[in-house]
Amino acid sequence: MAPEACVARLSLYARELARLAHQRVGYVSSRRLAQQLGLTDTQVRRDLSTFGQFGTSGRGYEVQRLHDRLTAILGVSGRTWNVALAGAGNLGSALLAYRGFKERGFLFRLVVDADANKVGRVVQGHAVASAHDLTQIVRRHDIHIGVIAVPVEAAQAVCNQFVAGGVRAIVNFAPIHLDVPPTVWLRVVDLASELETLAFYLARTTKFETATP
Amino acid sequence: MAPEACVARLSLYARELARLAHQRVGYVSSRRLAQQLGLTDTQVRRDLSTFGQFGTSGRGYEVQRLHDRLTAILGVSGRTWNVALAGAGNLGSALLAYRGFKERGFLFRLVVDADANKVGRVVQGHAVASAHDLTQIVRRHDIHIGVIAVPVEAAQAVCNQFVAGGVRAIVNFAPIHLDVPPTVWLRVVDLASELETLAFYLARTTKFETATP
Repeated sequence: MAPEACVARLSLYARELARLAHQRVGYVSSRRLAQQLGLTDTQVRRDLSTFGQFGTSGRGYEVQRLHDRLTAILGVSGRTWNVALAGAGNLGSALLAYRGFKERGFLFRLVVDADANKVGRVVQGHAVASAHDLTQIVRRHDIHIGVIAVPVEAAQAVCNQFVAGGVRAIVNFAPIHLDVPPTVWLRVVDLASELETLAFYLARTTKFETATP
Repeated sequence: MAPEACVARLSLYARELARLAHQRVGYVSSRRLAQQLGLTDTQVRRDLSTFGQFGTSGRGYEVQRLHDRLTAILGVSGRTWNVALAGAGNLGSALLAYRGFKERGFLFRLVVDADANKVGRVVQGHAVASAHDLTQIVRRHDIHIGVIAVPVEAAQAVCNQFVAGGVRAIVNFAPIHLDVPPTVWLRVVDLASELETLAFYLARTTKFETATP
């Protein structure tokens, strides 16, 4: 199975190709793709070669065709996935409002919260259900992907209920390590890690030449 | 300069090591680190060897020491970074509430919003300022990192003002491509990409054995 980091990059390639196709760009080189995404040419070529023979003549990759092949490989072409969100707070609300999900076939079928004051309210067009009996309702809605946007203290319990309800893929936004069985795919979104990556580069470059008025 | 994906993984290693240190684990193997983070042993060893000689005897890496060295390399050890947030909506509020930032030295010094109804309000302990004259106030606050959590339509304009104000590192949460000068480090957080990565694996495994009641 392809490494997770490589699959995550496929998703980036697909998005960039969609953007180029929208601009009616016909062909793109691995170099241009790499520049746009902050990667090296070699990385791009290696990633794509993992999944097939996409190269063409000297003109580069055919934008629309590569886009269609990559989305098919990613499993987001022509199908939808049922997503459950646990946690209808600020982060949960932001996720429900995020337009990229629906476009790529990820449909929020279920939104739950443990807070009785939130249950029954409508958040971004979704009625918030009680997190009580989460295992059963997850199973009833045939949920494929569970998104955890609850406080740290509740995250492992929600995760366990997702798993017990048959969810095989979980995205965790809570800044805590979660234990899942080996049959479950877990993605951890660490927001602070994004800033750390930038701090690395900032710590190695002087900004005085532009920061001083 | 080390590739961005490798630096992002350093941040993951540092977090996992902090967790192990908290549990008073003395030593950890590359194998265990890899397993916890969904990577291969080889990847972990290669990443770490990019930054120095961390290996030890047959006992593996010394947890606390490796943690301290990695955080020093990442530039998050013993110093703070001034962060500005543009956009005090749901996502912005979630970011302000996220406890991981302060722990790792990222301090929100400035929160702005274009919505006059939000200006002057206090969100998660931060007074929201007007986005008017963003360039000037960013410069005045000596902002190192700009976080963009505004609607797609406003993202490029905010980005330009950050850059004009001397910001050298930007994290973009808006699902749109941003143009920045080559002297500026840009991280794109694509929330839908996290779900796509999971879809790839889901599309390749049957879940019927657990999903059927």
